[in-house]
Amino acid sequence: MSGNNSGPRRTVLAKATSILDAFAGNRVSMSLSDLARATGLPASTVHRLAGELVAWGGLERTEDGGYAVGLRLWEIGARSRCSHGLRETAMPFLQDLFDVTRQHVQLAVIDGNDVLLIEKISDPRAVGTVGRPGGRLPLHATAVGKALLAASAPDFQASILCRPLVAYTPYTVTSAHALSRELAEARERGFALSTEELTMGVVSCASVVTSPGLAPTAAISVVMPADCGPPRRWAHSVTTAAAAIGRASVQQRGSGAISAQLTGAPASRTPGTGASLESAGRPPSNRVSDKPFR
Amino acid sequence: MSGNNSGPRRTVLAKATSILDAFAGNRVSMSLSDLARATGLPASTVHRLAGELVAWGGLERTEDGGYAVGLRLWEIGARSRCSHGLRETAMPFLQDLFDVTRQHVQLAVIDGNDVLLIEKISDPRAVGTVGRPGGRLPLHATAVGKALLAASAPDFQASILCRPLVAYTPYTVTSAHALSRELAEARERGFALSTEELTMGVVSCASVVTSPGLAPTAAISVVMPADCGPPRRWAHSVTTAAAAIGRASVQQRGSGAISAQLTGAPASRTPGTGASLESAGRPPSNRVSDKPFR
Repeated sequence: MSGNNSGPRRTVLAKATSILDAFAGNRVSMSLSDLARATGLPASTVHRLAGELVAWGGLERTEDGGYAVGLRLWEIGARSRCSHGLRETAMPFLQDLFDVTRQHVQLAVIDGNDVLLIEKISDPRAVGTVGRPGGRLPLHATAVGKALLAASAPDFQASILCRPLVAYTPYTVTSAHALSRELAEARERGFALSTEELTMGVVSCASVVTSPGLAPTAAISVVMPADCGPPRRWAHSVTTAAAAIGRASVQQRGSGAISAQLTGAPASRTPGTGASLESAGRPPSNRVSDKPFR
Repeated sequence: MSGNNSGPRRTVLAKATSILDAFAGNRVSMSLSDLARATGLPASTVHRLAGELVAWGGLERTEDGGYAVGLRLWEIGARSRCSHGLRETAMPFLQDLFDVTRQHVQLAVIDGNDVLLIEKISDPRAVGTVGRPGGRLPLHATAVGKALLAASAPDFQASILCRPLVAYTPYTVTSAHALSRELAEARERGFALSTEELTMGVVSCASVVTSPGLAPTAAISVVMPADCGPPRRWAHSVTTAAAAIGRASVQQRGSGAISAQLTGAPASRTPGTGASLESAGRPPSNRVSDKPFR
């Protein structure tokens, strides 16, 4: 079939998506040669496909002749069930939580072996943090990651625990045994904590969003300066807001808008693309398979 | 070249992007036959390309066997300069404006002949409105649209004024002459108003974001119930917040993060794709060409 064999084992579409993937890091704009390097494609191929993507609006040209992600891609991405469904359902409760805490409030999901931040509400005067919507954070060094991990199936937890746990600060928990114990505690008490484990001077408290009959894959957190006191003082607020989002999601479920994101079930991506751990038809391996969280 | 001629005048990539475009409306999920109908492609072609997009993560499968926009597309879209740059710079000031008003606060840009909503902060108890991030609103019936239109170049204004102006309510301004006069007033006083012109019972007040040396294409607004009093009472707050975002954007300019979005310059898309009005190298036609707004 034409379009499937213009290069060794990569379709035209796979080449085009590899160009888009090159923007998944922190660089806002990339030159033609940056893109050729990142994708391993000839510059002529990148030029042609990037031109088509610009014509569509998925990319746009920058002043310096490079490329940036275009408005059309953002517009269509905003229709994802994560943004359109989960985020929209959660926003009022995140805003309430922000009103109470006046600290960063985050909404996140597991994607692959990372935390993917879906939303972040910040006070202009709040402590500087690294996360932004669309950004990724490590599971083991953030409260939101630990809350998600604690609610995951044992085999997924094990797959994370057996990998090297990167030390971001002197306080990052890098022992699989210690992390495993912390996850059990988080599961028991309904919230997880991070005390300067990703960024010095920054602490956080998180809880997963549960909905009756659905496994949790979303979590919310409050992130604040360490000198504001122990993060667990926000535990009641965070768990209450998480429960409210879970309750609201039940009302949305009829519409199909967010149940999928909350179950993690729909992301039937090809194994190995790093996105989700299940393939179509099988229950996701990070689904909570035993008892409800909390 | 393979991949460019498997159908009449549409490349493989154009077919794939037409599948993504089918999600730009309000439908969260679409079946294979919905997609075939929307794109005009054979079901077998949709099946193959949608399968590739699922493998990448740009689409995901839904429980009922349909397709929805995937997390990967959202993640990469979040890297657009609009989201990563403009939105991020504006957020603290939008949050301040929300704190003062406790009404919906919106950030929007012109895209084609529409308002494209970039961000919306809402109080859980605020009045119901139609807009959501990634959604489109009419230029002539919203305060944010009128503010953007008032700051646009005369030829762009004229192109909007000579089109039929849809009446959404009995109060929508549908006379080109009356709208033109309103735009002149908005330009003069620095803010625009909508009084139940899009939705009965809802009013709004908006101001464009200006930055020295850059033409405005972004605007912010406050949207509230009509029974809260005249929307112009928030004019000072809205114009102050807009000015603050413009000032902050100057500091960002060195990084190249948002200057492009504010000038409208980078969106060098193929004319006719409905995205922006300029082509590469020419100044955008909706750029303010005479004197600064306000």
